[in-house]
Amino acid sequence: MNQSFDIAVVGATGTVGETLVQLLQEREFPVANLHVLASSESAGSSVPFRGKNVRVREVDEFDFTKAKLVFFAAGPAVTLSYVAKAHAAGCSVIDLSGALPSDQAPQVVPECNAQILAGLEKPIQISSPSPSATALAVVLGPLLELLELQRVSVTACLAVSAQGREAVSELARQTTALLNMHPLETSFFDRQMAFNLLAQVGKPDAQGHVPLEKRLVKELREVLGLPSLKISVTCIQAPVFFGDSYSVSLQLAAPVDLPAVTAALEAGAGIELVDADDYPTAVGDAVGQDVVYVGRVRHGIDDTCELNLWLTSDNVRKGAALNAVQLAELLIKDLL
Amino acid sequence: MNQSFDIAVVGATGTVGETLVQLLQEREFPVANLHVLASSESAGSSVPFRGKNVRVREVDEFDFTKAKLVFFAAGPAVTLSYVAKAHAAGCSVIDLSGALPSDQAPQVVPECNAQILAGLEKPIQISSPSPSATALAVVLGPLLELLELQRVSVTACLAVSAQGREAVSELARQTTALLNMHPLETSFFDRQMAFNLLAQVGKPDAQGHVPLEKRLVKELREVLGLPSLKISVTCIQAPVFFGDSYSVSLQLAAPVDLPAVTAALEAGAGIELVDADDYPTAVGDAVGQDVVYVGRVRHGIDDTCELNLWLTSDNVRKGAALNAVQLAELLIKDLL
Repeated sequence: MNQSFDIAVVGATGTVGETLVQLLQEREFPVANLHVLASSESAGSSVPFRGKNVRVREVDEFDFTKAKLVFFAAGPAVTLSYVAKAHAAGCSVIDLSGALPSDQAPQVVPECNAQILAGLEKPIQISSPSPSATALAVVLGPLLELLELQRVSVTACLAVSAQGREAVSELARQTTALLNMHPLETSFFDRQMAFNLLAQVGKPDAQGHVPLEKRLVKELREVLGLPSLKISVTCIQAPVFFGDSYSVSLQLAAPVDLPAVTAALEAGAGIELVDADDYPTAVGDAVGQDVVYVGRVRHGIDDTCELNLWLTSDNVRKGAALNAVQLAELLIKDLL
Repeated sequence: MNQSFDIAVVGATGTVGETLVQLLQEREFPVANLHVLASSESAGSSVPFRGKNVRVREVDEFDFTKAKLVFFAAGPAVTLSYVAKAHAAGCSVIDLSGALPSDQAPQVVPECNAQILAGLEKPIQISSPSPSATALAVVLGPLLELLELQRVSVTACLAVSAQGREAVSELARQTTALLNMHPLETSFFDRQMAFNLLAQVGKPDAQGHVPLEKRLVKELREVLGLPSLKISVTCIQAPVFFGDSYSVSLQLAAPVDLPAVTAALEAGAGIELVDADDYPTAVGDAVGQDVVYVGRVRHGIDDTCELNLWLTSDNVRKGAALNAVQLAELLIKDLL
């Protein structure tokens, strides 16, 4: 394939957008022209790509007919403001914001439900799910043939980097202050994040569910193709800079054979299964990597109809930017 | 009641033992003589009690006929070495080590199954469960009348203080090193604990379960009086100094009424239910407190047969030392 494509990245100065541009380079994505776009505040800065600094331009002034494929790595509001314009200009769109409804832009994780891409109308609009749904889908996808899944219980321990650079600095600042016996200051987080766990990431609705939890359930059901799967989820904020960890318990209709599970995980794309006597961590394994790490594969105590797993994944890279780039790699095969 | 009692504390120099002695003082437990005991390494140091420094003596040389009630706040090996001697000398025993089988020393959480004390033979031998089982029992106990419990799924995020002082220092040391860009050194933990989550606390058996997880399941079933309750558990080590947090999901045979749940939690002894728009944290709420904090009380997403909770508890105080002292307070009423 010698064809190359004009690409635009909206939200190119955020942590996910930056990683996405870096991955386009690393994976030698056939980019003809790269347009890096952001809000007026970030416009004028630059993003490194193939040894050059690409100037960040204002998304509001961009002529979308100049791009064949647009990544939306910005927030939902920005995405909703410009996606129709991009679509009308004939761009295919990969949205990372979760802003688009599934009937307009289905959620896709290449390792799990790439087959649905073939049925979509051009220009293609697809969504790259949240980092949590992506990591879980990569691992649960190859197990679906083995298991009759009744329920998934997840405690997602999320890194602060998903909240942006301000959250990262505040965790560092709070930690330093506490270790030096200085008074604690909070500004991004509403309480002490250092050496603590926060049980609520975002604002809960009247039922007590936060948007991240609702998004995880909706997206995971969609990607797994199990619209009525019971998913019990709690998202917590851990004092970890990079890399998400997931404590996962699956309830099954029948006893599960562990060797078959480990064989399926070993064969699964995008998965690294660690040795039985080891376990992966966010910092030690997942960060900077292109796979979801899996460990602590075990039955329940006295319950062979339960399967427990521990996952770690780079929330910015594997959970977001890489999934979007993998989707783009599939689209350019014959869908653009 | 004007009677007072001769008390011995084995393991008085550990974090739990020290807190236990402090609680005997704070709660004005009727102590006649206090004997603080430890292994030969710690003997000779002293423990503050009622304004005096009580000299720590070697447990091996102690004449147990001098005590009416002995707390074993040491490790399982030390407990197993001396408990028979204490029992033979006529002492009642409260074991915090988990070393004694339940038929010899039943697990008791006062808020949950205090009624079983009345049926025990004197001298009494009872066990104070692990901090995790204790915290969960305090909260689940008062809900049992409301719920037909089918399964409990728990991710227990444990503070490093449960591993002793060396673990606390290492988390501080690692954190400082990382913030100062110094190389990471590990000695207590086998890998980076700072800004990371470890998925395995202790050495797993051939099935992949660690002792803490097996202990939690066994003890919680016993204290709740539900010997075949399905409990799915993962214990993880969080980079938190003090205070455990629990992400709990309960599966029920029938839809649960949330107002009834909150009413039961508000009425429950040893529980502090936080406001619906708030949530408790280990550092901000639980540490130093005598209650288990509960928040994020909610149904499952699309599932009223699921009840989710977030608990935080001081692992050393409420989870261990206080439970043992509360047990002693019940015993002195008429059981010693």
